[in-house]
Amino acid sequence: MEEMKKGLEGVVALDTKISYIDGIQGILMYRGVKIEDLVDLPYDAVSYLLINGKIPNESELSEYSQELKDNRIINGKQIDVLKEFDFGVEALDGLRTAISCTAHFDLENNHHSPDANKNKTIKLVAKFPTIVAALHRASFDKEPIEPKDDLSHGANFLYMLTGKIPTDLEAEAMEKDLILSAEHELNPSTFSLRIAASTLSDLYSAVICGLCTLKGPLHGGARKGVMDMLDEVGNIENARPYVLNKLERKEKIMGFGHRVYKTYDPRARIYKDVARRLSIENGDTSWFDLAEELENILYHEFVEIRGKPIYPNVDFYSAVVYKYLNIPAELATSIFAMGRVSGWIAHCMEQYADNRVIRPRAHFV
Amino acid sequence: MEEMKKGLEGVVALDTKISYIDGIQGILMYRGVKIEDLVDLPYDAVSYLLINGKIPNESELSEYSQELKDNRIINGKQIDVLKEFDFGVEALDGLRTAISCTAHFDLENNHHSPDANKNKTIKLVAKFPTIVAALHRASFDKEPIEPKDDLSHGANFLYMLTGKIPTDLEAEAMEKDLILSAEHELNPSTFSLRIAASTLSDLYSAVICGLCTLKGPLHGGARKGVMDMLDEVGNIENARPYVLNKLERKEKIMGFGHRVYKTYDPRARIYKDVARRLSIENGDTSWFDLAEELENILYHEFVEIRGKPIYPNVDFYSAVVYKYLNIPAELATSIFAMGRVSGWIAHCMEQYADNRVIRPRAHFV
Repeated sequence: MEEMKKGLEGVVALDTKISYIDGIQGILMYRGVKIEDLVDLPYDAVSYLLINGKIPNESELSEYSQELKDNRIINGKQIDVLKEFDFGVEALDGLRTAISCTAHFDLENNHHSPDANKNKTIKLVAKFPTIVAALHRASFDKEPIEPKDDLSHGANFLYMLTGKIPTDLEAEAMEKDLILSAEHELNPSTFSLRIAASTLSDLYSAVICGLCTLKGPLHGGARKGVMDMLDEVGNIENARPYVLNKLERKEKIMGFGHRVYKTYDPRARIYKDVARRLSIENGDTSWFDLAEELENILYHEFVEIRGKPIYPNVDFYSAVVYKYLNIPAELATSIFAMGRVSGWIAHCMEQYADNRVIRPRAHFV
Repeated sequence: MEEMKKGLEGVVALDTKISYIDGIQGILMYRGVKIEDLVDLPYDAVSYLLINGKIPNESELSEYSQELKDNRIINGKQIDVLKEFDFGVEALDGLRTAISCTAHFDLENNHHSPDANKNKTIKLVAKFPTIVAALHRASFDKEPIEPKDDLSHGANFLYMLTGKIPTDLEAEAMEKDLILSAEHELNPSTFSLRIAASTLSDLYSAVICGLCTLKGPLHGGARKGVMDMLDEVGNIENARPYVLNKLERKEKIMGFGHRVYKTYDPRARIYKDVARRLSIENGDTSWFDLAEELENILYHEFVEIRGKPIYPNVDFYSAVVYKYLNIPAELATSIFAMGRVSGWIAHCMEQYADNRVIRPRAHFV
């Protein structure tokens, strides 16, 4: 038996056709297409690409989008059950339970045919935003808002959350956020989901496995951490003292550095551009300016201390985008999951298609 | 980056103090103690051993047992929520949702201190059997049965399931079953749970991650598979034609062979002895005789075909034990989880205590 690096760092656990990361060059591709060439597509098209392996043509996209729209709604009973869960829990706890309940409402839950898995895929991708929005509103004793068919996946989510039709730029930002969150190779949630899939557990269970792993503050929870940090720092004058104090205490600064990327995360660059444009539309660039100041200070401090810079990761500017979209910090992980579900499903299907149970060994000490 | 074996077969993914398997010699130890030396202890003592690293002395055991007994009950609201889930789903789907709801009722759900984790541990171990029994009864519109303090963990489960006090041997069988199910190194559910824990996700989420993975027919679902097979074969006369037909079609026979054990699984030996004694107490040895016949036929057929025998795994005789305990096949995986939860919690705590995010790479093809 071979000894492994802790956390399996740098270990290749499996083959995939779904995504490719070059952490040195800062390249991320979904199904062989660079992320920069995907962010102007609708989320639906990227979801289709991840799950079906090709960019949909016009009629494929229109059919897939319509299927998603037809399945956005959740039924009354399901909403009643959601309300039962309002015990002031974290949003991702509620989402975990709600998705688990969604499985009970799906008569194909434990059917494993390709058709059943296709139907479950549509339901999962379509209903995630409705559930996230309904759960959030329920926590304020507000009724859910019905989805609107003429809005994109992302725009409709913002609408269901607030009841307001988002601006074009807000809609674009939400779509891009979901695309950039959709897939990232063998991150911990995807890896745990593939292990569940490798026992031939059902699609809902595998996705819930992913949710349970995403919840951790060292994974999906990091985006909320950045939002909390931005609130804590508060304004640009506090940026330098905050950073220096953190560095002195050798504490981690949220939203910087990544296990895989040793350069600028290509997603962070896109988020930064979106955040800048939102800040201008908003007429108040202070969150963006604060974030950029933090980035610059850290860059130079790290060059000085370690002889090499540190870069913002995907969580950093996405948190700024969420600030401008008025998304509450506690929803950050749930929204991450809304995007990631397409990548999770793609990995689940890839595992089912050529399966071997993922069962390593441990070394007894 | 190093290339790995598919399914990470034989790859050492991490260090553990919790269990040791020698698949060649057929040895399984929990915390350095052979399984044969543990099966006569109460389940509570083995649960304590796994989680706390030592066999409890008399006062430690009595305190731990009392804490478990004090936490067996689930509240009325929780039972109402459980009833909402009776949509004819698989038992493990219901259990997944119910445990997810249990987290909402625990105000310490998202507290991560050692004390909070200790409290959550007690609640999880204590409430699993109550929830499994209540869910099963709810599916027949039966009210839950309140736990009985003078019964052991296993005996109380059988009582809550049926309302009948089990015989001494039935109680012993249930306790042994939970002990033998409690831990097995880096099996898929434990591995996926450790990945969730490595993101510092909470204990409930990690355990639910384990449940989602255990559900698969290639993992926890296998025990139900054996029970279904025993029903399908039906009687001893059908054993040989059944086996020969399966071998001819190159189909897998449930309950035989194991990724790690290349000899008799030490747990299977203990289950076999319990199954034999139950069959005698029951006055009808036909399920046991059928199982032993299947074992013998397969042993000799494999010697002939491959030049080496195949052995029953843990699922094989445990299924026979469940037959004699009148446990419905659909509960087999949930009961497996009831036992395994102690091992899961132990692994979660071990991961928290010396953490590095488990994040391997994939190879893009």
